[in-house]
Amino acid sequence: MIDFSMDPADVALRDKVRSFVRERIIPYERDPRLTSHGPTDDLRRELNALAREAGLLAPHVSSHYGGLGLNHVQRAIVFEAAGYSTLGPIALHCAAPDEGNMHMLEVVASPQQREAYLRPLAQGDMRSCFAMTEPQPGAGADPGQLLTRADREGDHFVISGKKWLITGAEGAGFAIVMARAFDGQQELGPTMFLARLPDPGFQITRTIDSIDASFTGGHGEIALTGLRVHKDDVLGEVGQGLRYAQIRLAPARLTHCMRWLGAAVRAHDIATEYAMRRKAFGTTLLQHEGVGFMLADNEIELHMCRLAILDVAWRLDQGENGRHASSMAKVFVSEALFRVADRCMQVLGGMGVTADTQVERIFREIRAFRIYDGPSEVHRWAIANRIARTKAAP
Amino acid sequence: MIDFSMDPADVALRDKVRSFVRERIIPYERDPRLTSHGPTDDLRRELNALAREAGLLAPHVSSHYGGLGLNHVQRAIVFEAAGYSTLGPIALHCAAPDEGNMHMLEVVASPQQREAYLRPLAQGDMRSCFAMTEPQPGAGADPGQLLTRADREGDHFVISGKKWLITGAEGAGFAIVMARAFDGQQELGPTMFLARLPDPGFQITRTIDSIDASFTGGHGEIALTGLRVHKDDVLGEVGQGLRYAQIRLAPARLTHCMRWLGAAVRAHDIATEYAMRRKAFGTTLLQHEGVGFMLADNEIELHMCRLAILDVAWRLDQGENGRHASSMAKVFVSEALFRVADRCMQVLGGMGVTADTQVERIFREIRAFRIYDGPSEVHRWAIANRIARTKAAP
Amino acid sequence: MIDFSMDPADVALRDKVRSFVRERIIPYERDPRLTSHGPTDDLRRELNALAREAGLLAPHVSSHYGGLGLNHVQRAIVFEAAGYSTLGPIALHCAAPDEGNMHMLEVVASPQQREAYLRPLAQGDMRSCFAMTEPQPGAGADPGQLLTRADREGDHFVISGKKWLITGAEGAGFAIVMARAFDGQQELGPTMFLARLPDPGFQITRTIDSIDASFTGGHGEIALTGLRVHKDDVLGEVGQGLRYAQIRLAPARLTHCMRWLGAAVRAHDIATEYAMRRKAFGTTLLQHEGVGFMLADNEIELHMCRLAILDVAWRLDQGENGRHASSMAKVFVSEALFRVADRCMQVLGGMGVTADTQVERIFREIRAFRIYDGPSEVHRWAIANRIARTKAAP
Amino acid sequence: MIDFSMDPADVALRDKVRSFVRERIIPYERDPRLTSHGPTDDLRRELNALAREAGLLAPHVSSHYGGLGLNHVQRAIVFEAAGYSTLGPIALHCAAPDEGNMHMLEVVASPQQREAYLRPLAQGDMRSCFAMTEPQPGAGADPGQLLTRADREGDHFVISGKKWLITGAEGAGFAIVMARAFDGQQELGPTMFLARLPDPGFQITRTIDSIDASFTGGHGEIALTGLRVHKDDVLGEVGQGLRYAQIRLAPARLTHCMRWLGAAVRAHDIATEYAMRRKAFGTTLLQHEGVGFMLADNEIELHMCRLAILDVAWRLDQGENGRHASSMAKVFVSEALFRVADRCMQVLGGMGVTADTQVERIFREIRAFRIYDGPSEVHRWAIANRIARTKAAP
Repeated sequence: MIDFSMDPADVALRDKVRSFVRERIIPYERDPRLTSHGPTDDLRRELNALAREAGLLAPHVSSHYGGLGLNHVQRAIVFEAAGYSTLGPIALHCAAPDEGNMHMLEVVASPQQREAYLRPLAQGDMRSCFAMTEPQPGAGADPGQLLTRADREGDHFVISGKKWLITGAEGAGFAIVMARAFDGQQELGPTMFLARLPDPGFQITRTIDSIDASFTGGHGEIALTGLRVHKDDVLGEVGQGLRYAQIRLAPARLTHCMRWLGAAVRAHDIATEYAMRRKAFGTTLLQHEGVGFMLADNEIELHMCRLAILDVAWRLDQGENGRHASSMAKVFVSEALFRVADRCMQVLGGMGVTADTQVERIFREIRAFRIYDGPSEVHRWAIANRIARTKAAP
Repeated sequence: MIDFSMDPADVALRDKVRSFVRERIIPYERDPRLTSHGPTDDLRRELNALAREAGLLAPHVSSHYGGLGLNHVQRAIVFEAAGYSTLGPIALHCAAPDEGNMHMLEVVASPQQREAYLRPLAQGDMRSCFAMTEPQPGAGADPGQLLTRADREGDHFVISGKKWLITGAEGAGFAIVMARAFDGQQELGPTMFLARLPDPGFQITRTIDSIDASFTGGHGEIALTGLRVHKDDVLGEVGQGLRYAQIRLAPARLTHCMRWLGAAVRAHDIATEYAMRRKAFGTTLLQHEGVGFMLADNEIELHMCRLAILDVAWRLDQGENGRHASSMAKVFVSEALFRVADRCMQVLGGMGVTADTQVERIFREIRAFRIYDGPSEVHRWAIANRIARTKAAP
Repeated sequence: MIDFSMDPADVALRDKVRSFVRERIIPYERDPRLTSHGPTDDLRRELNALAREAGLLAPHVSSHYGGLGLNHVQRAIVFEAAGYSTLGPIALHCAAPDEGNMHMLEVVASPQQREAYLRPLAQGDMRSCFAMTEPQPGAGADPGQLLTRADREGDHFVISGKKWLITGAEGAGFAIVMARAFDGQQELGPTMFLARLPDPGFQITRTIDSIDASFTGGHGEIALTGLRVHKDDVLGEVGQGLRYAQIRLAPARLTHCMRWLGAAVRAHDIATEYAMRRKAFGTTLLQHEGVGFMLADNEIELHMCRLAILDVAWRLDQGENGRHASSMAKVFVSEALFRVADRCMQVLGGMGVTADTQVERIFREIRAFRIYDGPSEVHRWAIANRIARTKAAP
Repeated sequence: MIDFSMDPADVALRDKVRSFVRERIIPYERDPRLTSHGPTDDLRRELNALAREAGLLAPHVSSHYGGLGLNHVQRAIVFEAAGYSTLGPIALHCAAPDEGNMHMLEVVASPQQREAYLRPLAQGDMRSCFAMTEPQPGAGADPGQLLTRADREGDHFVISGKKWLITGAEGAGFAIVMARAFDGQQELGPTMFLARLPDPGFQITRTIDSIDASFTGGHGEIALTGLRVHKDDVLGEVGQGLRYAQIRLAPARLTHCMRWLGAAVRAHDIATEYAMRRKAFGTTLLQHEGVGFMLADNEIELHMCRLAILDVAWRLDQGENGRHASSMAKVFVSEALFRVADRCMQVLGGMGVTADTQVERIFREIRAFRIYDGPSEVHRWAIANRIARTKAAP
């Protein structure tokens, strides 16, 4: 029955993460290893070590693989706290794409694959990437346009094609590659493959310059040129790739919402603190309604985002697939958080356009968030289609 | 702990209300007794009789006074269902201002007052009004500008002043009048008085034409000219009027949200049904993304409004005063529902500007809702002030 | 070359219209003949007489037919001034649909038709209506769905079908009816017919209740049951109806913008005056930035609307068809003016929801304006299509 | 009288600039000398040489100092064309802050100062900066908070204080420094000083990392430690600094609008071209209304921005100070262009977040534009104050 209270144990864990982020992680936000292509792997490992020491590594993974076994509601609570620094999810190893990959592997992978890929991934011994998106005219928002193909050769599949915007490719220990499988002329359907990296068949042709900078390894452009994967490294079943993508995407979208909510709370705290201190025309900015109203809107929207996330997380915990619900939450949360970040930058005035506060970075990151894991338009289109399917005309 | 499930008994009650509204109440929406100043008292009584017969009258009132004793979360569920027709809350007798008055009387009134005023009100034998707002330069958004005064004369107070926008004044059996009490020169503070109506000291000088039309009795302009109230009819204590107003307002704002959410759901259903049926340029409106995206946004915002309401209702059930939370919810919900109603009208095109569907009425009602019980600007101001008070500058 | 100055003669005419509206017309705004279906014909004639006396009747019509022969830029200047009262355009006889009909007749009609229809119309001896829109599944936003048919019978056409939202039908002296002409089985294409009213073949089945109330005669629902029109009363050529509709629509859309700009200026003046006078929390509303910023946004948007209108009017004066430009202006102006009207209502608070000021009426009228003469969505669709047509992909 | 036509000579100049930018400047957009702190001085000089050769250098400066002597309307036409590449204004030497400084020097400086500072500046032999903004608690949006002081010592002023966000400081040949002048205890008022650089009293303590990257020299933080300026290098009169700032600011705000309009047109062209080419779900993005409507809104808003700019430019050419008009235009244009840039990024999807197109850069630049030369909130505040001053309450 309707209940908005949090389990005291979850509150305690949240508070522990908050303290950890503030005390141990925020000091790294000026670390030179935080490049325009994200934190270096060296920095990532250093942060993971801190989280491991604090007992906070990979909190979403089951204890069998070394995590805390949090359910989705608990992730909502903890990931928001982690997101208060853009380095927090890196430290806790619950950032994209690893977090979503771990989730999918735990659900879909065979026991052998879980030992081989999930366990070292969960322990931070390696990172991973998810190689699905292709440059035009390939698969972007529309997965039906998938062009990469995997041709069966005996016990192997040989994969060729192009991928781009593959987050974390640089430095990853393995990739999950989506390709259209073929057995000779016969198409077997979109399939996911586990490929150890580095591999000469998986060439990172460049790391793409982008508006965001918080993912370890940045966003890679990949040339797949005869990448060989053994059939034991097919993830789940041949031809089920799109279904697994959905298993990955619904919660992955939501964990993005959780982490960026934390970042937006940070931006709001910075803007509020500034507005209470900075004076103009005889009074503090906060006492100017023009500023105070912006901060009031932030309070409202941050609160609404939290409710939106908890609702979907709870549904996932009940076993719903959450596809529609997470689409709605992704649109609402990404757009609301962007408005929050935009207002924070505006409140800061000249300070806002500088990198002297984290607001400038958070603004850029959340702008990108409105696009990845499905731009708002793709979700609105899906929601409208669902209306058409589910409401019978009288 | 976080839980978004509804009690099956609440679901059953909701479904009963839904059926009742669809089958018994919606047919009255073309009744000629639904005037531009709201339903007539005759119509109201007829609808109350239907609800009484169905066991649905005054669901928010304790069973001791003949209601169903619903808590706030249950009200959220039931009032939304009632609001699916603008006549639903009238029928269930949970419309403003009576619903808020019943709530306040149950909390604040003396046992004698409850028998004398609450019982007949809860049973639909009479209606009530809440006479607080004054024409300028009196009390509007700022209750500190209260000008009506109540001068002690022995065991009575004699009240003089002007009120306006007093919903339901016409035909009310009693009024709750807010006035600044005086004992000679000494000010005793804002005080609430219970005044039986009609009374020659309480003249309704006109019923005001307005954009909305769903409140029984419309909005009255009142001249208070020596209205005498016995001290036993002071509500609660002398000088505590503003505090009681808050007790009334936080939940009253929220029940407005609940009811208008139901109305907006109705508008969305009408617009969706139309968009699935109406064709233009070779396909249904719904298949045009320009329309489908509007309906997708409606789905998202209606869902978010429901979450916002449930959250505050749950807080009220936990004993929180809900003042800040209901301010946030009022701003969010009133503005989101207006966007929903506006989109519905737009989707309907030419049909939307006509009274042939309920959308035109719902649009006007929800526009007014953005103003009454505190325009958004007053709430944003209060939220900003609270930020200033609660966040200590470092 | 770029010049934003106004001809002093135009300024003088504008000021004359301003004075006329303020002194002679605004006093009629409380006239009981202003019904929920618009001003009565009796009131309309009384106001026309005042304008005729002032030398201001039908300013857009050539002097040959008794008007002032204003070009489009001059109309922009004068119609805004007229629109300061919703009764102003009625008085000057430059309201829809008569104004657009006069324009089209002057361009398209034969000399005989101009004498027979345009002259008495321009002089205010009669009103007219434009019968194009049909109830679903007929022609709404998509004129291609036209269902009304006109079958040739010797020298006549016999017209049957349904129309609705036909503004000014009640009391009109003639109608311009759009129908699909047929000669036996052969379709001759959409055609406009001039039909004297009343006529038993043109039945007004009802006047539709709607959110707006400023058009004389309201919005009629029409049953066309064998309406006979002589071939001499075909407007222009058979089969050219859609082309003439465009000739009518591009400037007609723009004159709507002009008139409603005037109305929005009025609303802004009312809100500003109120905000300077009304106090809350220790200062005037205007000094609260939450209100002052809304009025600042009004100033900006009203100014931008004026520029948008003048630009298109100038293009029409240069002989451009203005179809694309007036689509853009219609979307921008109707949406901007609605935001202005909405803010004005919000600034007025409780006063805003009442009919005590003109703001409540103006808000409702401008909401309808966002839909008639093409909802924003139809224009955006047309603009997007034009982008596709005119920009060649590289 | 109202005229929206352009002088053919202006059109010819515009087209020449367009060709110049497309053919000569755009190829430099991938030049490695375009750093995160803007183009290097070396690149700037190379681009200036191209413009000089094309006869397009400093088009806003009078021919006496080597420019083209364009009035404000002509600047609107030419600067938009230049802004099509963020390097265009650098090349034409009409970028901020030099462009505004040249304008102010031409109006305010003495003949000797014009020869000494304006001439070499106009010829691109040096750059300049405008040192007004201070870190908190100094002068930001509120110039009244100016803390930097200039103490008279004989024929010199000795200036001490802190400045920041001083665009172009790194590498500038001189600075215009705003300081509060004192003669002993007596305050002489805010004053502008011309200071040759480099100078040990003017230390650039760092160049600030920021969201934008198109200004040569970036944004500097300055320590003024006993900077000595001779009284002949006081700009205009002592104590008139704030007045000169206004002379600089009204047109400078507008030229920002002009240049960024050009950049937004570029973004729109890129997004449109992409939307015509990229397919998803069976058709081009452009044919999806969800995308087509965004591009339609871009068309509308770009057009409105152009009108807004031309209107104020024309007013400045008429000798109006343009203070209020340019405030309104700055708010409208900066916010509209940001919406345009934001939509372009969204249309591009994953491509939008990368630096593979100029859209990502343009988005960041225009976000900053909403803040510099006065955040929207400061302008709204000024507009609201002007309403209060100019409209007499009845």
